[in-house]
Amino acid sequence: LQSRLPKVGTTIFTVMSTLASEKSAVNLGQGFPDFNCDPALVDAVGDAMKNGFNQYPPMPGVPALRQAIAAKIDKIYGHSYDPATEITVTAGATQGLLTAIMCAVHPGDEVIVIEPAYDSYVPSIELAGGKPVPVQMTLGADGYQVPWDRIAAAVSPRTRMIMINSPHNPTGSVLKPADIEALKDIVRGTEILILSDEVYEHMVFDGARHESVCRDPELAARAFVVSSFGKTYHVTGWKIGYVAAPAMLSAEFRKVHQYNIFTVNTPVQHGIAQYMQNPAPYLELPAFYQRKRDLFRAGLKHTRFKLLPADGTYFLCVDYSAISSLSEADFAIWLTAEIGVAAIPVSAFYQSPRESGIVRFCFAKQDQTLQQALQRLAKI
Amino acid sequence: LQSRLPKVGTTIFTVMSTLASEKSAVNLGQGFPDFNCDPALVDAVGDAMKNGFNQYPPMPGVPALRQAIAAKIDKIYGHSYDPATEITVTAGATQGLLTAIMCAVHPGDEVIVIEPAYDSYVPSIELAGGKPVPVQMTLGADGYQVPWDRIAAAVSPRTRMIMINSPHNPTGSVLKPADIEALKDIVRGTEILILSDEVYEHMVFDGARHESVCRDPELAARAFVVSSFGKTYHVTGWKIGYVAAPAMLSAEFRKVHQYNIFTVNTPVQHGIAQYMQNPAPYLELPAFYQRKRDLFRAGLKHTRFKLLPADGTYFLCVDYSAISSLSEADFAIWLTAEIGVAAIPVSAFYQSPRESGIVRFCFAKQDQTLQQALQRLAKI
Ligand SMILES: CSCCC(=O)C(=O)O
Ligand SMILES: CSCCC(=O)C(=O)O
Repeated sequence: LQSRLPKVGTTIFTVMSTLASEKSAVNLGQGFPDFNCDPALVDAVGDAMKNGFNQYPPMPGVPALRQAIAAKIDKIYGHSYDPATEITVTAGATQGLLTAIMCAVHPGDEVIVIEPAYDSYVPSIELAGGKPVPVQMTLGADGYQVPWDRIAAAVSPRTRMIMINSPHNPTGSVLKPADIEALKDIVRGTEILILSDEVYEHMVFDGARHESVCRDPELAARAFVVSSFGKTYHVTGWKIGYVAAPAMLSAEFRKVHQYNIFTVNTPVQHGIAQYMQNPAPYLELPAFYQRKRDLFRAGLKHTRFKLLPADGTYFLCVDYSAISSLSEADFAIWLTAEIGVAAIPVSAFYQSPRESGIVRFCFAKQDQTLQQALQRLAKI
Repeated sequence: LQSRLPKVGTTIFTVMSTLASEKSAVNLGQGFPDFNCDPALVDAVGDAMKNGFNQYPPMPGVPALRQAIAAKIDKIYGHSYDPATEITVTAGATQGLLTAIMCAVHPGDEVIVIEPAYDSYVPSIELAGGKPVPVQMTLGADGYQVPWDRIAAAVSPRTRMIMINSPHNPTGSVLKPADIEALKDIVRGTEILILSDEVYEHMVFDGARHESVCRDPELAARAFVVSSFGKTYHVTGWKIGYVAAPAMLSAEFRKVHQYNIFTVNTPVQHGIAQYMQNPAPYLELPAFYQRKRDLFRAGLKHTRFKLLPADGTYFLCVDYSAISSLSEADFAIWLTAEIGVAAIPVSAFYQSPRESGIVRFCFAKQDQTLQQALQRLAKI
């Protein structure tokens, strides 16, 4: 059998989580919390199952959940999507991303991807028959920045879509109003679509605000906005998220969605719809993770790791070049096997080999887990 | 935006379920039970959530569930798959089908589809860039049959895959050992793959047995076998199933799977793994649905509907040509709106228009629901 994805092996997340468990390392690699979600959320899903909400929901999602999503977006970003035609519940953000790409990208179309990029972007574009056009972020004293001039230069008549991601995985950087303006200047007058991965929307720190593309009517009119309940509600294994897009784009999205998975787990949808009535869990998330970020950063102050800015997400990137000249992959393996702390090499987020001497830690962990990791890292 | 699926509208299942609820019709259209699943299954999932199984599981599925699936297949069909490399848990059978097609079908490849065919098959092939080659079942005194000679004639050097489905939706027909032999004769010596949709595997009646392709080593070696827990355990809204395939095919399957949805809801996987330890629920399923089939058929005996054989699945097809000369779609709408019983037109399962005067009823309903439908149908 000739492979449809010849370059693809096991994802770096699986590789590092497997190694971490073999070596009994503290797993700060794959991005997931090591604490449980709110029992009220578990009860809400349990009640839905007991009440018999176990058969097919409507294809685009349970109406109460789509309404709750639209209400949340309106409240926070001031954009009103029609839940009937513009919100679709997905089996996690990854499925939302692939489906948005599959419905919009035709064979031969180009998609601009900003690297480092979450590892599903490029294979998803390739499955659709599209051509990924990578543009690398620059790394300076302010951390990682998007070079909008190089993105403008990468646009061609075949550019169908630009993928953006803020707060950004793996770098923890966050787009600012000036970035949004630069993006608008690039797409204005074109038919280029935006695919905006906003799964870390509720993790922006130091009082900054998340510049969702749906704050801006000009961008929202051409954007698929992808988010995830797994990240927000500490249930990465529940596989539920959503895609918001104008009716015309959502109609195409749903055509592919209905033949990809048709629909998403019914009781989980009902449970989250009920749980969303209380905004506290997502409103309190920035403070919750900012405290963990600060705890973890403070513990690393006295090591030879150089800390990069971490304005959003639950990831912290560190420069280890004062410690080792190993490649990022080898350093991450060494760190896991010898020091007992798993991390993710940032090189895994690039299509072409790129070594910056940087690895990513996930701080979505109990304080005691972070402290144990810090103790081990202090020995280096 | 130019559509990737220009021919696709809303699925017939959504159309008819929506109309059924508008008209307060008894919904015998879309295939789902109107009774709740076993409370023990709900408890098993609830316990998994409470015990903190809410983060990412391994990409191919929770090991205990993959082992339970492999053990079940071995016990019933005598084929042993390696759970580590040959079983992948999917977000329902539809996602398994699309993913199998995406990983194996290259642009320009042909896929033979036996019509009437479940409505996701053709769009899934088109999304992969493949060319669907439909071959229609024949309809005679014995009901629907697969014309293997015409399938052999449809094979070309570009044929990459043949899709089969037994027990068959919508016709309720079931492949026999002679069908399996005919299929083997066609593929022997070729590199043609088999995609076998077996979601109704536990619904075969009158003492017949399900001829899973994995009973036959020659076919199993080239087959993706797709099944669904939604159908078997009365939880169509949980979106969980699996794909079994030899390691080489499973490796390609997983490459696409990991970038499509990455993995499937963790607590549901744990709950089903535990629930599968007791084989009674699936062993008792044939008797459970045979009784409902018989109840429903008996009630239709005195109507002018001509009943087609129903050897498997939870569907019954009826010929209404003695009642009406409306098209199947119009008859289904009339039946829903005027008689108050929703059905599915079998024409919706064909790519090119085909009218046989046949609609499909789903009998996965409480006895009282079936009786209410029978009362209404008796008035025609
Ligand atoms: C789907 S596993 C990856 C989880 C994640 O978002 C990350 O670690 O970057
Ligand atoms: C995914 S909705 C369709 C359910 C079903 O299998 C059918 O009614 O044929």
